[in-house]
Amino acid sequence: MTPSQDLVELAERLADASGAVIRRYFRKGIEADDKADASPVTVADREAEAAIRELLAAHAPGHGIVGEEFGRQNEGAELVWVLDPIDGTKAFITGKPLFGTLIALLHRGRPVLGVIDQPVLGDRWLGVLGRPTLWNGAPARVRACAGLPLARLSTTGPQYFPPAKARAFGEVASRAKLVSYGGDCYQYGLVASGSIDVVVEYGLKLHDFAALVPVITGAGGVMTDWEGRPLDAASAGDVVAAGDPRTHAEVLAALRAGDPRHGAR
Amino acid sequence: MTPSQDLVELAERLADASGAVIRRYFRKGIEADDKADASPVTVADREAEAAIRELLAAHAPGHGIVGEEFGRQNEGAELVWVLDPIDGTKAFITGKPLFGTLIALLHRGRPVLGVIDQPVLGDRWLGVLGRPTLWNGAPARVRACAGLPLARLSTTGPQYFPPAKARAFGEVASRAKLVSYGGDCYQYGLVASGSIDVVVEYGLKLHDFAALVPVITGAGGVMTDWEGRPLDAASAGDVVAAGDPRTHAEVLAALRAGDPRHGAR
Repeated sequence: MTPSQDLVELAERLADASGAVIRRYFRKGIEADDKADASPVTVADREAEAAIRELLAAHAPGHGIVGEEFGRQNEGAELVWVLDPIDGTKAFITGKPLFGTLIALLHRGRPVLGVIDQPVLGDRWLGVLGRPTLWNGAPARVRACAGLPLARLSTTGPQYFPPAKARAFGEVASRAKLVSYGGDCYQYGLVASGSIDVVVEYGLKLHDFAALVPVITGAGGVMTDWEGRPLDAASAGDVVAAGDPRTHAEVLAALRAGDPRHGAR
Repeated sequence: MTPSQDLVELAERLADASGAVIRRYFRKGIEADDKADASPVTVADREAEAAIRELLAAHAPGHGIVGEEFGRQNEGAELVWVLDPIDGTKAFITGKPLFGTLIALLHRGRPVLGVIDQPVLGDRWLGVLGRPTLWNGAPARVRACAGLPLARLSTTGPQYFPPAKARAFGEVASRAKLVSYGGDCYQYGLVASGSIDVVVEYGLKLHDFAALVPVITGAGGVMTDWEGRPLDAASAGDVVAAGDPRTHAEVLAALRAGDPRHGAR
């Protein structure tokens, strides 16, 4: 199912609404609360998701919603919006403008549309099944990278890998050209735009990865789980996004070498 | 010695010149070379430092220069400029706009002026001994943070700590409210502006830390080595920058707890 132009425009309006809220709060000294999983959340996360849900209630009342802050609603619908108003809340509250708003549309569980929006820098990646990914309105394209020894690797932080997965990531890192830390969803935009060759992360939630898939694939890249399987609503949240399929294959091999038991879960 | 207004204006002109070069190259697909220490360097690093040196040759011919890319010149002078045209080359080449140009002026080895300039975002912190730090022309001020359990901690990446130092950093991280990765010199600007409470790093060179000291102290913060000693041209490059002295003291204690042998080097 290729999303209609109406759905694409709605997705962009949702990102506009979220961004307007977030810009009001960025670097304004707001405090974070701890969620049940100890991750931080702010009034900006909540108000941004509320603004998105208000638009969806008005313009797509029959669709389902899965949002990071306000949960699930009609999630059995054929079309489900998946929302992360601020992906990278730690970056947001520490004043680093590399967090972003993630908006995905799932068709029967499969991501068919994704927006990565950085409202402070004004960067937006728009991925739509069957179309080339756009970065601020112009086509985005991954760069060629013939293999992992040439690759620029990025990940948000080491603390997100449990020990066995840290060893697997370490194996990838040791084979890569360089490793850069930080960036949350913004890193995936940079893969689509050809600045980063590969991002490896673990333990993402559906709202963290669903929007990234159409952005990466529409720019010529590959994004799967650590076994090489496509990502959908049932995926566990271990992800590899690469611009070049050759690098992607070498990353999967390095992950297996670093954590031979991974496939056995 | 408090720098004259002429010296302050010269420092800003140096940053302007560097920024003009860097903006031309950011995200333009340039390749990096490996230096002797395996860190990457690009044509942008070299051209930016050359542009700064050209201005210094014209306007401060009697001063010394210590630059990351082109080495030392007249470094026994009373006034020495310390230059890092791109602090965060990995961020630069991966398209993350949190690298920066660092320009410091040392008086008899002590940093008396520092500029942190992010030429893509247009963020500049200016620290001058005896004056309040400015962030884009307005006074910057650290935020209060009564102790490490309340602190937002940041560091560029885990790979810069050798194992014993990684344990020391791990002790700090385990006691902090949250840890965010990435940012190079930009993190220190965010300490001065009150978004981050503490940055802990290891193995910095003089060109990496000299400019940061006047920025942090002029905003009300504290920046020392891991023993609590002031930073100058003879320092080893282990640094703690904190907005609040209470947090700074608790970080030093945590570093000692995590690596009891550190002081014995």
